Amino acid sequence: VNLVEVTQGADLLDRAARGDILAVSRLITAFECGSSAGAGVVGDVYARTGRAKVVGLTGVPGSGKSTLAAALVRQFRELGQTVAVVAVDPSSSISGGAILGDRIRMNAVAGDSGVFVRSMASRRALGGLAAATADAVAVLDACGWDVVIVETVGAGQAEVEIARLAPTVIVVSVPGLGDEIQAIKAGLLEIADIHVVNKSDHPGAHRATTELRLMLRMKPGTDAGAWPTPVLQTIATDGTGLAELRQTVEDHQQWLRATGELARRARTGAGARLRAITGDLLLRRFRNSIEGPDFDRLVDDVVNLRLDPYTAAAEIVSRLIRPEESVKSGASADD
Amino acid sequence: VNLVEVTQGADLLDRAARGDILAVSRLITAFECGSSAGAGVVGDVYARTGRAKVVGLTGVPGSGKSTLAAALVRQFRELGQTVAVVAVDPSSSISGGAILGDRIRMNAVAGDSGVFVRSMASRRALGGLAAATADAVAVLDACGWDVVIVETVGAGQAEVEIARLAPTVIVVSVPGLGDEIQAIKAGLLEIADIHVVNKSDHPGAHRATTELRLMLRMKPGTDAGAWPTPVLQTIATDGTGLAELRQTVEDHQQWLRATGELARRARTGAGARLRAITGDLLLRRFRNSIEGPDFDRLVDDVVNLRLDPYTAAAEIVSRLIRPEESVKSGASADD
Repeated sequence: VNLVEVTQGADLLDRAARGDILAVSRLITAFECGSSAGAGVVGDVYARTGRAKVVGLTGVPGSGKSTLAAALVRQFRELGQTVAVVAVDPSSSISGGAILGDRIRMNAVAGDSGVFVRSMASRRALGGLAAATADAVAVLDACGWDVVIVETVGAGQAEVEIARLAPTVIVVSVPGLGDEIQAIKAGLLEIADIHVVNKSDHPGAHRATTELRLMLRMKPGTDAGAWPTPVLQTIATDGTGLAELRQTVEDHQQWLRATGELARRARTGAGARLRAITGDLLLRRFRNSIEGPDFDRLVDDVVNLRLDPYTAAAEIVSRLIRPEESVKSGASADD
Repeated sequence: VNLVEVTQGADLLDRAARGDILAVSRLITAFECGSSAGAGVVGDVYARTGRAKVVGLTGVPGSGKSTLAAALVRQFRELGQTVAVVAVDPSSSISGGAILGDRIRMNAVAGDSGVFVRSMASRRALGGLAAATADAVAVLDACGWDVVIVETVGAGQAEVEIARLAPTVIVVSVPGLGDEIQAIKAGLLEIADIHVVNKSDHPGAHRATTELRLMLRMKPGTDAGAWPTPVLQTIATDGTGLAELRQTVEDHQQWLRATGELARRARTGAGARLRAITGDLLLRRFRNSIEGPDFDRLVDDVVNLRLDPYTAAAEIVSRLIRPEESVKSGASADD
């Protein structure tokens, strides 16, 4: 453990909590990189969470999510609430991008110290990006930001998983897209707490809204106490419908707290996170024992079709774990 | 081990290899569900792989991938080659869908026993879907299909990972999409062996093609022996440019074999797969020891902000692994 870094972590958290935006940014980076500065304050950060309204914003590409996010930021700002936006782009793991969204948004809110924008672009695994996003949200929550918007760039499975980190999920769609995009929407339908049909001045907006409402009515398990998932219409570019969207977010957050649903979602989320981190730690513990000449020989065997990958992996695991431990576990692929 | 199922597996593989399409389908399902029938023949299946031309097809939503896939199938069929399509939809994990794509494609190729279409919709984790897709490709390769096309529905990180399973990756784009989609395309640029600008009769097709060529020219590391990534124009609905696309796929496969690049990619892929399966097996071995009252108590602590998730996970791991083993590993989050 690097004691200088740990001290830096406590100092960073202190400054970040007092509104120093540069310190907030550096603290998120410290968590992202797994540095000692982050590890030193992780307990303090998580202990301070639980006050921010955390909102997920996802939807099909081309639906105007970025513009909608900026417009929603302005709504909360008009009420004097501070807003942080975490923009997540899983698809940029290769090119290391997410710069575009930043630029767009920074123009819209430049010079306002009550707004913080941060892009998360993965250079690591998917699990890593979700974890880094959760940490960033925790840092912002702990530092006293009133609203934290988690915006995803795409709408694939990874993006859906990340948007679900937020207790209130807004799903944005747009009139007049093709069948292929409708298929994607089907996966998004079930995670939405609030539906938004953006660009509602475009032809087909009424039809898209009606279709969504119809699909929602056919959803099973919609009982009396359930949240009546609204379908709102907006035009993000001129602000139409944005005040209503902001109010609906507040209503949903209040509903979450009043019904105990917030605690239930927190529990499910904490369980999933604990499992993921545990899996990650286990793999890291074993990494040194896995890689090496034996591993390379097994890869050769797989490439040359002498061994299938399952039998090869089972061989690695049986070398790692002693017999008395494997008795407790399930069957392996090679027996 | 269920001996009846194992016998069924051998029987299934036998029938599948002789062209029984129902047997092919059941064998893929056996692998997907991890049944003994699949486990019994996994060695035989992988030993028979390596002959099929495996092609990945990905791109932005709305680019007409499904229509292009169907048109490419017809091209290979005209030369008498058998073609299997594995359509992967990571976003349908929740709704269990991918039915749409199936319907579209089945209409196009119905009644042709030289064509096989299979949808993979994940009800499991992402790693699970990539693994199931790799297994499906192995089954089809082992059963003698000449061409296997892996088509992804979306274009998020998960889809990109799955398309990369194929040694030849076609990335489809389309003229006139917004900035947000261009940002996604940036992530796809680097995995493309062949670029296709579909709907090339639409306005902006020339510009889209020129832009792609320009971006490719700026790509670092394009030396003399490298594959000169082509940018083709197609109109999938009327077949324009499809013969050229088919020929380019053949050219790329030949280049892969001639330069040894196929073996290099196979080696990288096998290594990654072996690591993933090993991680998965490790987690399964430990699952019983992880879940339980102790785990639930730690989740409570995390929810009630008494403990951060990293410290909680480190506690689980330190209980699982004995001291002498943890000495070999790196630092944990709580020390």
